[in-house]
Amino acid sequence: MKTLVILSHPSIGESGSQQFLIQSVNDHNHVTLHHLEREYPDGIIDVKKEQNLLLQHDRIIFQFPFYWYSSPPLLKHWQDEVLTEHFAYGYRGDKLHGKEFGLVLIIGVGEKEYESGGQEGFSISELTKPFQAVAKKTGMTYLKPFSIFQFAYKTEEEKMELLIAYQQYLSLKEADSLKAKEEWMLKQLEELSYDKIPVDEAPFIIDEAISMLEDNRLELDELRLHIDHYAD
Amino acid sequence: MKTLVILSHPSIGESGSQQFLIQSVNDHNHVTLHHLEREYPDGIIDVKKEQNLLLQHDRIIFQFPFYWYSSPPLLKHWQDEVLTEHFAYGYRGDKLHGKEFGLVLIIGVGEKEYESGGQEGFSISELTKPFQAVAKKTGMTYLKPFSIFQFAYKTEEEKMELLIAYQQYLSLKEADSLKAKEEWMLKQLEELSYDKIPVDEAPFIIDEAISMLEDNRLELDELRLHIDHYAD
Repeated sequence: MKTLVILSHPSIGESGSQQFLIQSVNDHNHVTLHHLEREYPDGIIDVKKEQNLLLQHDRIIFQFPFYWYSSPPLLKHWQDEVLTEHFAYGYRGDKLHGKEFGLVLIIGVGEKEYESGGQEGFSISELTKPFQAVAKKTGMTYLKPFSIFQFAYKTEEEKMELLIAYQQYLSLKEADSLKAKEEWMLKQLEELSYDKIPVDEAPFIIDEAISMLEDNRLELDELRLHIDHYAD
Repeated sequence: MKTLVILSHPSIGESGSQQFLIQSVNDHNHVTLHHLEREYPDGIIDVKKEQNLLLQHDRIIFQFPFYWYSSPPLLKHWQDEVLTEHFAYGYRGDKLHGKEFGLVLIIGVGEKEYESGGQEGFSISELTKPFQAVAKKTGMTYLKPFSIFQFAYKTEEEKMELLIAYQQYLSLKEADSLKAKEEWMLKQLEELSYDKIPVDEAPFIIDEAISMLEDNRLELDELRLHIDHYAD
C-alpha cells in the first residue's frame, strides 16, 4: 500500500508540529510527502502531474493546520484544480474510486473546546463534513480524521506516542485493528537496528511494544472468558 | 443598517448567476459590494483596510460558488489574514460582536441531491458548519444561508423572485419576518419611478406585491380566527 501525504501550510517553517511529523516520514514506509507550498510557490498547479501522483497511491492524506475550520488556501485551490470532472467525479470520473482518504489536522485549541458548550462549540466530525463529502463524491473510503490537539503542550513521551500513531495512520492497512497494530509494531522492531535509534528513545519503544502486547493479551483473555461463559 | 458583500469567485466573468446578482446591487440600499479577486489580483491582502471595512458594516455576507463544499482559495486566505486574534477573537477581540453573518452560495447541483441518499449526501446545514463556527468564534449572529441551486435552469420569473429574495437577504432588518418583507416591498414600490423599470418587468413586480399583501391578509385572518376562538 502506498500513501500520499498532501501537506499544506502557509508558513511551515514556524510550525513545530509539522517539522516533527515531517522528519518522521521517509520512503521506507511507502509514504510520499508532497508539500504544496514548496512545490507551487506561485500557486500555479500542474494538474496532470498531481492527478498522476494520485493514481500512483492508495491512501490520500490531507495534512494541514485547521485554521478557521478548513484547509489552507493552496489546498483548496488544489482541490478545485485537480479534482476535475471525468477524473474525480461525473461521467467516467472514477479514477479515485476505492482509494482511502484521510485528514491529519493540527489544532491549536484543546480537544474539549470542540464539545457542545466548548469555546469552538462544534465537533471535528461536524466541521470536517465538507471533506467527508469530497470522499463520497470521489468514491473514496473516508478514514477517521487524525487530529493533533495542542502539540506544543505535549510531553516528550506523548510526542513519541503521537509519532507512532501518526505512522500507523499513514501506513497501517486497517488503521483501527489491534492485530494490524501488533504486526506493525513487530515489523518496526524487526527492522530496528540499534545503531539507528537514539539511546534515550530505546526504553520508550520497548515499553510501547510491551504495552501493546499486553493490551492484546487482555483482549484475548476477555474473549476466552466469553467463550467459557457460553460453554458452561 | 449597512451590508458588506464579500464576493469571491475565481472566474467571475464566466458566472451568469454572479453577474445577475451583482448588477442588482447598488449603494441605494446601503450595500457595499467587495470583490476580492478584483481588489487583490496578486493575493496580497490589505488587512487594516479589510478590518476597517468590516467595522463600517452591520451585516457581513460571504458570496461564493460552493465548489467542493467550501469557499474559494482567496476567501479562505482573507479569513486567515483578516480575522486576527485581538480583532475577531481572543483577548479584546470583540470587534465583530453583534454583527450579522450570512452566506450566499451558488450551487450547480439540484437541491434534492443534498438530502440523505442524494448524490452529495450531506445537507447545506452540515456542510456550512465551519462558517457557523466562524460566526460563533467571532461573536456574530449567524443567518440562515441563502442557497441558489442550478441558476442556469431557472425561468425568467424564478430569476426575478430570486432577485427580490436576494435583495431582502442583503438589506432586510429581520430577513424572515413577514412584516419586514411587506414594508420592504412597499418601500421599493414607493421608490419606483416608472421610467426606471423595464416595461416587461412591471406586471411581475405588481403581481409580487399583490401576492405578498395577500399572504399578509391570510395571516391576519388566521390570527383573527384564533382570537375569536379564545373570546368565545
